[in-house]
Amino acid sequence: MATPETKKRPHIFLAPAPRAVADIFDAGDLARLEALGTLSIHEDGPVTEAVFNAHAAHADIMIGQLDLPAERLAQASSLRAIFNVEGNFLPNIDYAECFRKGVRILNISPVFAEPVAEAALGMAIDLARGISRSDRYFRQGTERYGLDANRDAFTLYRQDIGFIGMGDLGRAILPLLRPFGGHVRAYDPWLPSMWIESQGCEAASLETVLRKSKVVFVVAGVTSENQGFLGANEFSMMPEGAALVLVSRAGVVDFDAMLDFAAKGRIRVATDVFPEEPLPPTHRAREIDHILLSPHQAGALDGALREIGKRVVADAELIARGLPPAMCKVAQPETVAMFRSKPVSKS
Amino acid sequence: MATPETKKRPHIFLAPAPRAVADIFDAGDLARLEALGTLSIHEDGPVTEAVFNAHAAHADIMIGQLDLPAERLAQASSLRAIFNVEGNFLPNIDYAECFRKGVRILNISPVFAEPVAEAALGMAIDLARGISRSDRYFRQGTERYGLDANRDAFTLYRQDIGFIGMGDLGRAILPLLRPFGGHVRAYDPWLPSMWIESQGCEAASLETVLRKSKVVFVVAGVTSENQGFLGANEFSMMPEGAALVLVSRAGVVDFDAMLDFAAKGRIRVATDVFPEEPLPPTHRAREIDHILLSPHQAGALDGALREIGKRVVADAELIARGLPPAMCKVAQPETVAMFRSKPVSKS
Amino acid sequence: MATPETKKRPHIFLAPAPRAVADIFDAGDLARLEALGTLSIHEDGPVTEAVFNAHAAHADIMIGQLDLPAERLAQASSLRAIFNVEGNFLPNIDYAECFRKGVRILNISPVFAEPVAEAALGMAIDLARGISRSDRYFRQGTERYGLDANRDAFTLYRQDIGFIGMGDLGRAILPLLRPFGGHVRAYDPWLPSMWIESQGCEAASLETVLRKSKVVFVVAGVTSENQGFLGANEFSMMPEGAALVLVSRAGVVDFDAMLDFAAKGRIRVATDVFPEEPLPPTHRAREIDHILLSPHQAGALDGALREIGKRVVADAELIARGLPPAMCKVAQPETVAMFRSKPVSKS
Amino acid sequence: MATPETKKRPHIFLAPAPRAVADIFDAGDLARLEALGTLSIHEDGPVTEAVFNAHAAHADIMIGQLDLPAERLAQASSLRAIFNVEGNFLPNIDYAECFRKGVRILNISPVFAEPVAEAALGMAIDLARGISRSDRYFRQGTERYGLDANRDAFTLYRQDIGFIGMGDLGRAILPLLRPFGGHVRAYDPWLPSMWIESQGCEAASLETVLRKSKVVFVVAGVTSENQGFLGANEFSMMPEGAALVLVSRAGVVDFDAMLDFAAKGRIRVATDVFPEEPLPPTHRAREIDHILLSPHQAGALDGALREIGKRVVADAELIARGLPPAMCKVAQPETVAMFRSKPVSKS
Repeated sequence: MATPETKKRPHIFLAPAPRAVADIFDAGDLARLEALGTLSIHEDGPVTEAVFNAHAAHADIMIGQLDLPAERLAQASSLRAIFNVEGNFLPNIDYAECFRKGVRILNISPVFAEPVAEAALGMAIDLARGISRSDRYFRQGTERYGLDANRDAFTLYRQDIGFIGMGDLGRAILPLLRPFGGHVRAYDPWLPSMWIESQGCEAASLETVLRKSKVVFVVAGVTSENQGFLGANEFSMMPEGAALVLVSRAGVVDFDAMLDFAAKGRIRVATDVFPEEPLPPTHRAREIDHILLSPHQAGALDGALREIGKRVVADAELIARGLPPAMCKVAQPETVAMFRSKPVSKS
Repeated sequence: MATPETKKRPHIFLAPAPRAVADIFDAGDLARLEALGTLSIHEDGPVTEAVFNAHAAHADIMIGQLDLPAERLAQASSLRAIFNVEGNFLPNIDYAECFRKGVRILNISPVFAEPVAEAALGMAIDLARGISRSDRYFRQGTERYGLDANRDAFTLYRQDIGFIGMGDLGRAILPLLRPFGGHVRAYDPWLPSMWIESQGCEAASLETVLRKSKVVFVVAGVTSENQGFLGANEFSMMPEGAALVLVSRAGVVDFDAMLDFAAKGRIRVATDVFPEEPLPPTHRAREIDHILLSPHQAGALDGALREIGKRVVADAELIARGLPPAMCKVAQPETVAMFRSKPVSKS
Repeated sequence: MATPETKKRPHIFLAPAPRAVADIFDAGDLARLEALGTLSIHEDGPVTEAVFNAHAAHADIMIGQLDLPAERLAQASSLRAIFNVEGNFLPNIDYAECFRKGVRILNISPVFAEPVAEAALGMAIDLARGISRSDRYFRQGTERYGLDANRDAFTLYRQDIGFIGMGDLGRAILPLLRPFGGHVRAYDPWLPSMWIESQGCEAASLETVLRKSKVVFVVAGVTSENQGFLGANEFSMMPEGAALVLVSRAGVVDFDAMLDFAAKGRIRVATDVFPEEPLPPTHRAREIDHILLSPHQAGALDGALREIGKRVVADAELIARGLPPAMCKVAQPETVAMFRSKPVSKS
Repeated sequence: MATPETKKRPHIFLAPAPRAVADIFDAGDLARLEALGTLSIHEDGPVTEAVFNAHAAHADIMIGQLDLPAERLAQASSLRAIFNVEGNFLPNIDYAECFRKGVRILNISPVFAEPVAEAALGMAIDLARGISRSDRYFRQGTERYGLDANRDAFTLYRQDIGFIGMGDLGRAILPLLRPFGGHVRAYDPWLPSMWIESQGCEAASLETVLRKSKVVFVVAGVTSENQGFLGANEFSMMPEGAALVLVSRAGVVDFDAMLDFAAKGRIRVATDVFPEEPLPPTHRAREIDHILLSPHQAGALDGALREIGKRVVADAELIARGLPPAMCKVAQPETVAMFRSKPVSKS
């Protein structure tokens, strides 16, 4: 298998805002990027037309959240790939035109899969076993011990587990759950049953997932079509005392309804995301006993940021050699539009 | 492989104190026990000499925490097995005499391995990712978001993990850690390096485990020889910000020294056990930010109690058929005395 | 996550040659295809211009190995996807035009990954442990027993294993090897080191893989650039007695050189593929003791054929709903041309 | 956890027949043994009374297959452990007396678990996929290709798998099967259902295992009670074309009946063991197409022999320190007698 011959050295335009070059590329990764071709870095303010014309227009590879309407794409005649250094696809690109021209559009969402999966597991165990709640009682002087502390505790071992969504994030959680030996049901209308079953899960309807699961992981992103699709009706399907772990987007749930169910103790909730951040100081969520509040911290580790650079460089090297990218998330023509609705970032 | 022929129907004496029959045997398990031989149940007060003479003396199998000095063993001439329904071996039995006579001595500590392992993992993720602390800040109105919440956070993925002790409990934690892909070092002076390596771990000295690990699981039991063996000297070997998860016995650590290190933020600590329980209301541990307090709740789930009965019945059935037990912990002549020192129970 | 709305019912044109409809679709799968839209099946001879114009030209989805030059693509204005029912991409399609128009091009190579992986493991154990050779000696009356039979045997446990190529097939072999606990090195010039390491392997040069491995799995496909890239020079790098398992394409090796090394006993070889099939009756490979000959049987199980239909239907359903395919292999613009060189099929 | 204090330096008597010291101990392991106490090695002929009296009688640890009737045990007053360097327990020891005196009796059967498990998996894949048979046809010039070669082939993926016996050997095979995702049923009358289920298997009757499994692994040892318990009646329960892999002892099957079923093509058989070894030159087994013959080679690798020494030394070190053994198989009072019936060794 001979190494495919290297193509001409590419021009690379790097405008990392809203991140800084030093946050996402370590010295070694930046050196690899420089070795790959001709690198222009723009960190001072927005990419104006002048900047674009001077540096970006002849780039083969762009890294950053640049606006790329059709007119700019028309200028960027040698463009082969555009990397967003966040975990989403923004509506500032003419995707259809990119697909027509064979321009790869990528984001770095895979860097968040592992840290969010770990946090989601920690939050699930916390809800099942009452870990943070018992710690809180200790600090209030009201803790109970042993069996008395465990009146409503349950374990993940051999448990019924549900997933709403089975994308990259769900797939990162699955291996962490496997040693617990539970039965996993997953609802994902974008994926065939055959695919879900190939991951060792049962493909199920949303209702079945909600009714049968003791722990539900909500890992679906917000699309133009599923805003707030988990509301009072859905929460009422969950068994008494079941746990909901929300780590994708607040927009997929009716947040108030979710809090109502948690406040009554009807379900337990852990959430890493909120309709507005910061949460207002007097927000009632802060007082609810059956909720675990996590300040959008599941994905944004230092280590994850540095992995952004590593993935971008690896894929830039592949693209420079005429090979398909392997480390970043590749925009798909069928779905990129659905996710464009809201420029939220998981950071 | 013909079924080994069943021996004579045994007499079984069941005195479950400090537990109740109904807590540890469900109806099906009790029915199996009754079907096995002649069952005498004693739940009213202590096993006096009269009770012993009337019921226990001719038992083949005893279930409970009966005192069994040499004199009683001499009377119990058909005794083949004695099951403690707690997770320890008490000093109220003449073990040497039992071994001489071929009496199996068992406890049900394996029922606690899974729930404690799950809790230990949850506590480790909590310390690494700041889960309960962030929830506490939310309730105080001082939470920060995203990267700001994660200034000292780290992940278990590909992390250096240490174990102090690698008995049943450590072995139950290992599979839960495996999907994180870390490097695990274990110190256990009772086990050969070859054994530790067969579990996919590096056998290491106590000092190496402490110096190299970002998370240390303390799962060693207290013996007559290791009381308080983890003290200021040992904690000072741990890297800045490393995490200690204590789920076995408070007696193995110098608790005050441990709190000192947590109070300074030098290490993070999660503990399920305390020198005295309940912890005094004004104990300083309740105020420390870098500690996670768990009220001896890691093992004592309802499900674990019901598993006690299942394990006891399964082994009683084997013993009745002349086969070795398979589900309970079997006392070993070399070690049972070392663990006799203190009648603490993990419940 | 609301189900994305279903698009208009597609026209589907199914011309399964060289396979038969009944071999790849069971009744249920065919019913799903019929329920999806308007299905035209053509099984009688080639797809002539008349047939194409009558049925295929207005198809949204085509299933089969139809010739699709630019002119036909121009006619097929509603075409969204073309499925090859074999495991390759043939040069009879104008791929560039398909990519420009956003037509998905798919093949069903994933169905072969599991059966080939299983066969490759079986062949590796056979070479390591001398299984078929010992059976042959038994039939010749020359068998030896126990240690005497094992003079050159080795085990896969904790062994140095190498991969040449780490595509779908390599990825299917990896989980089967994992319980053996070996160290896996992989050479794949199309994949970044970071990706190979994410699979738990060491990324290595071709030479390192050859020099360090006791078993080498050759799972690279033939491209326009790597014809016969494993020759005498490469085999001479392998340790004495090492094993080579070839399950992808005969074209990647210098077959004669490989036989020379096996005939000398210098390496052991298992091959499922041959430069010409059937192998000539008097071919010297049939007499070599250190070779395991497998008649292109690694992938072509009945079960694999029936899985073709299941994957095609699942992806056709997704495409009909405007979603990206998930079960078939998707042609990538960067690589499809490299694999077009030779219309060999793995069947 | 302080290191338990080291006891007095033991006398060790090593009489390795029928093995040689150099075959089972490498230099490092022998050095560890010497460092442990006072080592006497006897390799010249049998352990006569004179030898016994001179060297063994005061040994703390004996390594070898010495006869140990009650009289000799009475002399060996400091004896704490006796290691058989083979994988069985011979009837030349007064086991009851050993148990009364607290003498540990050990053998090294664990060294064979991995190599036999690997061979068993290789043999199972061979039968399922026709690997050695196809190679044989190649050498006869009668091979067929692709689907034609696979008319009766099946795969282990998601298959019904059965075990007869679930001892150490079965437990070593299980992890190798796990990535294939099959359903495993196990019959073992010595183990409770709860134990079998804890291994991820379904506990089943012998008949259910035979009727439901496409591949049956026979890993039960011969006892005084199960001689030839798998006969024509049992084989007739197996589905047409199912596979039987026999790797424990020939004595558990009616060998002639097994050959009858294989000769008819009713089942496929792989066997590593034979009623007499070597098999007579004209034995009909050598001509049967649906059988895979393996000359007692599954366990006896060089590497396994060297592991004997490592396990013996590790456990001798533990015993010298007053700790229970961890690496060798420990004789159990309930079962040792059942296995004494026949001094066969797995080598």
